[in-house]
Amino acid sequence: MIDRKILLAEKDLPQRWYNIAPDLKTPLSPPLHPATHKPLGPEDLAPIFPMALIAQEMTMDPWVEIPNEVMEILKIWRPTPLVRALSLEKALNTKAHIYYKNESVSPAGSHKPNTAVAQVYYNKQEGVKRIATETGAGQWGSALSFACKLFDLECQVYMVRVSFDQKPYRKLLIQSWGGKIDPSPSTITKYGRAVLAKTPQSTGSLGIAISEAIEDTVGREDTKYSLGSVLNHVMLHQTVIGLEAIEQLKSIGEKNPDVIIGCVGGGSNFAGLAFPFLKDKLKGKTNPKVIAVEPMACPTLTKGLFEYDFGDTAGMTPLVLMYTLGHDFIPPGIHAGGLRYHGMAPIVSNLVKDKVVEARAYHQTDCFKSALLFAQTEGILPAPETSHAIHAAIEEAKHAKEGQVIIFNLSGHGHFDLSSYDAYLSNKLEDYEYPMEKIKEALKAVPKI
Amino acid sequence: MIDRKILLAEKDLPQRWYNIAPDLKTPLSPPLHPATHKPLGPEDLAPIFPMALIAQEMTMDPWVEIPNEVMEILKIWRPTPLVRALSLEKALNTKAHIYYKNESVSPAGSHKPNTAVAQVYYNKQEGVKRIATETGAGQWGSALSFACKLFDLECQVYMVRVSFDQKPYRKLLIQSWGGKIDPSPSTITKYGRAVLAKTPQSTGSLGIAISEAIEDTVGREDTKYSLGSVLNHVMLHQTVIGLEAIEQLKSIGEKNPDVIIGCVGGGSNFAGLAFPFLKDKLKGKTNPKVIAVEPMACPTLTKGLFEYDFGDTAGMTPLVLMYTLGHDFIPPGIHAGGLRYHGMAPIVSNLVKDKVVEARAYHQTDCFKSALLFAQTEGILPAPETSHAIHAAIEEAKHAKEGQVIIFNLSGHGHFDLSSYDAYLSNKLEDYEYPMEKIKEALKAVPKI
Repeated sequence: MIDRKILLAEKDLPQRWYNIAPDLKTPLSPPLHPATHKPLGPEDLAPIFPMALIAQEMTMDPWVEIPNEVMEILKIWRPTPLVRALSLEKALNTKAHIYYKNESVSPAGSHKPNTAVAQVYYNKQEGVKRIATETGAGQWGSALSFACKLFDLECQVYMVRVSFDQKPYRKLLIQSWGGKIDPSPSTITKYGRAVLAKTPQSTGSLGIAISEAIEDTVGREDTKYSLGSVLNHVMLHQTVIGLEAIEQLKSIGEKNPDVIIGCVGGGSNFAGLAFPFLKDKLKGKTNPKVIAVEPMACPTLTKGLFEYDFGDTAGMTPLVLMYTLGHDFIPPGIHAGGLRYHGMAPIVSNLVKDKVVEARAYHQTDCFKSALLFAQTEGILPAPETSHAIHAAIEEAKHAKEGQVIIFNLSGHGHFDLSSYDAYLSNKLEDYEYPMEKIKEALKAVPKI
Repeated sequence: MIDRKILLAEKDLPQRWYNIAPDLKTPLSPPLHPATHKPLGPEDLAPIFPMALIAQEMTMDPWVEIPNEVMEILKIWRPTPLVRALSLEKALNTKAHIYYKNESVSPAGSHKPNTAVAQVYYNKQEGVKRIATETGAGQWGSALSFACKLFDLECQVYMVRVSFDQKPYRKLLIQSWGGKIDPSPSTITKYGRAVLAKTPQSTGSLGIAISEAIEDTVGREDTKYSLGSVLNHVMLHQTVIGLEAIEQLKSIGEKNPDVIIGCVGGGSNFAGLAFPFLKDKLKGKTNPKVIAVEPMACPTLTKGLFEYDFGDTAGMTPLVLMYTLGHDFIPPGIHAGGLRYHGMAPIVSNLVKDKVVEARAYHQTDCFKSALLFAQTEGILPAPETSHAIHAAIEEAKHAKEGQVIIFNLSGHGHFDLSSYDAYLSNKLEDYEYPMEKIKEALKAVPKI
C-alpha cells in the first residue's frame, strides 16, 4: 500500500539552511546603492535590517545554522507533509508519480512563516521593537503578524489596495494575531500620499507598498523593515522546504525528481523547494527539469529584462541585478496577488539567466481550472498563486513517462481567496496578456547602470 | 525535547469504529415513529437512509469494520496530529499537559469529513445518485460536498440562512467541490415556503433545514438524506478521533487523560474524541472528567429536558429520547452556528443523564477571548464552535495539578468564520442568556409520549 503522506519527525527538521550562492555558475553581482550606484556595504543596509540578516544576505557559507529558538517555533507546523497526489494521478490517468510539499499547513496557510519566524527572531535579538512590511495577497503580512506576536514585537503591514479590498479575511487574520494593517497607497507615508494625489483610484502594487514600508522604517528608531521574498536571506530561510523533501523522498526509496516546480512572484517558495535539489544539478550530478511558473499578466522572467533595477517603485531600495518589468510596472489586478511583482529574486534570476531553471507563464483561468481539479481530487483548495504550480505539474504529468517523478510546492491554501474562486466559477475572470510595446514602455524606467 | 506533534503512520489508522451503545449504563431507548409513536423498524428509515447505515444505527456490535475504500480516502488527511499545546501551556503558566486533536487539517477544515466519506460510500454502494442535507455553520455541507465529489454523487445542501449570509466563503467552498447550495428556509420545499410565509425574515435553524432536506429526499427516488451529527452511526464514524488519540498518548508514554473536552451542537465531535476513552470509564477502570461544552445561548444539556422529541422543526423525523429545548426552539444568531441546535445526540444525552459526562455552558465572548489566546500562541485560528472547547480547557488548566493531562478536540479552524472574529474584535458581539420562562415556553412543544 502506498502512503499518501510522507511524514518526518520533529527531530528530523533540518538543522541548517542551504545557501546556494557559492554553488551558482555565475557569481551573484553585488547590490548597488540607489543614489551612488556603488556596491553596497553592510552599513548601507543597517538602517533597515538587523546585522545578522545583512550577514546572511551576503554570506558565501554553504550552510547556515538554524537557531534553536527558531527551530522550536518551526515545529508548530514543521516538518510539513510531502504528499503523493494519488487521487490527482488517478484523475489524470498519468504514468507520473506526482508529489507536493504541503506548505499550506502552517498557521498562516503558506510557506511565508518559515522566514517570518527567522527574521523576527534576529530582529528581537538586536533589540528591535517594531517591524514594518508590505504584503500583496496578504500571505506575507499574516505570517509576519503571527511571528511578531510570538516574539512580542509590534507589526505594521501595508497591504496592496486591490488585495485589501478583495481579501477582507486576510486583513482580519493579521488583526487576530495583533498586527496593524493599512491599505497601500496609504495616507500614512509621504510616498503613499504622493501616489494618491496623482492616482486617487490606485489599486496599488507591491513596489508602492515596499516604498511605504521602507519610508516608515527609516523614519523611526524602534523599527526595522522586513521583506517576505526576493532577498537572498529569505531564499535561505525557505530551503527547509526542499531539504525536508529530499529526506522524505529518500525515506520511501523514491528516485530523484525529474521535474521540480514552483510558482514565482518574488521567488521564495520556488527557491525553498528547488534550491536544495539544484545543489546536485549545479554539480552536474543530476539533471532535473526545474520550472518557475509566473502569470502571463506579470511575465517578469519570460518577457522582462535582466538588468539592475529598484525593488520598489519610489527607487528607495538598493539596485539589484534581476529580471524586471521596470520598477513602475503596475500589473493588472489578477487574483494571484502574490505574483504581481515587477522584479524577481536575484538568485532565481541568475539561475534562469544561466538556463539552470526554465521559466514559464500561464493565464489565470487555466490555473483556476487546474486548481479546481486539484481541490476535487486531493481535497485542498489552493491559493491562486499556487494554482500556477499545479497547472504546470498537470501539464507535465499529461505527457510523462512511466514512473517519472514530478514534485511541486503547494505553497499555500486558498481559504482566504474564495472571492477569486467566486469570480472564476461565475465566469467573471479575465485573462491579460501584455503587448510587447507596453512592456517595452515600462522597461524604459530601468535605470542605465 | 518534547515533541509538539504526535503523529501516527497511515498504517496505524484504526481498522474499526468503536460502538459505545453496548457499553452504556442505561440501554438506549428506541426511536419512535413520528405519527404512531411506536418503536421504529429498519423499514421506517429505508426511504431516507441506505440499509447499511440503518444497520449501524441499531447495531449492538462493539466494533464495526471500516471499509477499505473509506480508509483509503480518510488517509488524505488521517491520522490527524495530536498536538501538545506547549506555547499555550507557557502562556497560561499551567502545570497541566494540554493536548489537542487537530481535526482542522481535513480538506473541509473540521472533523465532519470522517462521517461524510463513510456515509457517501454506503449510499454509493446501494446505488444512490444524489444526497440532500442541511448545514448550520457550513462545516457539514462542505464536508458532504467534498465526499460526494470523490464518489461522484450529486449533493444538495440547505444552509441555515444566518450562516449563509454570515459565511459566504463556506458557500463558495461547497460550490468549489461541486455541491449545490440554497439558504434555508428556501423556496424549494413546501416546508421552506410555509416558514417564509409565516416569517419572511427568518434566519433559519438547523431544525428547519433538516425538515427541508428530508422533504427533498422523500420526494425523489434517486436521493437519500444524510445527517452530519446526532445519530448513532455518525457518532460511530467519528470514533477514529479518540481511537487515534489513545494510540498517540500511548506512543509517548503519557498517562490516561484526567480531563476530556469537546464542544457540542449535535454531539459528534465530542463523541468522536470522548467515546473511545469512555469505554474504560464505563467499565470503572478509569475516571476522567469528561466535559461537553455548549453555548449559553443554546443550553440544550444544561437547561433542556430529557424527553422524546423530534430532530427537526416540522416534526417529520423520528422521535428520539434526548435533551431538548423543544423542536421549535430558535436560538439567537450566535456565531457558533454549528452549536445552534435544539436537540442533542441520544447517546451523548444518555451519558449526561447518567452523569458519565458533565455538561457546561459558556458565553461566546469568553470563548472568543480564549480562541484569540489560542491563535496567538498555537497559531491556529479556531472555529467559533471549537472555541467553546478551548475555553473549557483553559479554565481547567488554570487550577490543574502538576502533570494533569487535559485533552480537547480542535474540531475545526475558523478560516471561514473571520467575520465573527471581526465582530468580536470590534466589540460588536452580544452574549445571550435565555430566561427560564422563555425556555419553559419552548419546552411546551415537546410532545407527550
